[in-house]
Amino acid sequence: MNAQQLETLVHQEIPITKALGIHIAELTQQSIRVTAPFETNKNIHNTAFAGSIYTVGTIAGWSLVSSIAANNQLKGSVVLAKADIQYKKPINGDLIAECALDDHQLFDKFVASFKRKKRARINLSIQLREDGVTKAILNANFALVS
Amino acid sequence: MNAQQLETLVHQEIPITKALGIHIAELTQQSIRVTAPFETNKNIHNTAFAGSIYTVGTIAGWSLVSSIAANNQLKGSVVLAKADIQYKKPINGDLIAECALDDHQLFDKFVASFKRKKRARINLSIQLREDGVTKAILNANFALVS
Repeated sequence: MNAQQLETLVHQEIPITKALGIHIAELTQQSIRVTAPFETNKNIHNTAFAGSIYTVGTIAGWSLVSSIAANNQLKGSVVLAKADIQYKKPINGDLIAECALDDHQLFDKFVASFKRKKRARINLSIQLREDGVTKAILNANFALVS
Repeated sequence: MNAQQLETLVHQEIPITKALGIHIAELTQQSIRVTAPFETNKNIHNTAFAGSIYTVGTIAGWSLVSSIAANNQLKGSVVLAKADIQYKKPINGDLIAECALDDHQLFDKFVASFKRKKRARINLSIQLREDGVTKAILNANFALVS
């Protein structure tokens, strides 16, 4: 699955993501970058809206897990179980969420667990960045269920 | 400030809330109920989208704190500092977020702290309910800053 196919899937599965302007900017086997335009997601103080920041972050996580599932022929639904977010600094431009699965063991365990139990969980740390600075951090726990 | 005035304020301050269909259904001095339509916020599995659930919850909290500030002549901006959410069960209909400030001491402390320091924080527990069942719980920490 490439970035364009994944974006089409996201817009189909979760229609409100079109209104938010969610865009899959980059996708590899184990990393993703998702963006959304500032104008659509700003508040009156001219900073990004907290709800949009969270949503762009969760879409990055959901999309990465969906892509991993598709690439490994794991047939299931990706569900967000719980999450926490810390807003460290205001975001003054486009929203950019990045997530990379650096831990190969975590990844292998996730795939093996699903193949064995038809159910697996994974914790992702998603960074909301602007000009190289982390403005918010989202920790999200996803389940893949058959 | 009544529910209609607060809804107008929310739509002005955070434009994307109009696209989400955010509606202030009920407002008292210390409680709020915020809704959003299912059709706009559903995913392809016919359940409410996790990002929308979070956003409706944070809008309930943001709106209640903004209303308390206005009613107590506290002039400042309401900012979400951090939050965590637990999705317990799928939501199959309209999104309904409820929050009530049951603890009077917490409320008094918040108002007194802002009057003294021009800055105050408050933790809110926001329930996402359907047919009387709590489907998700959002804990959100808001700051009021002058």
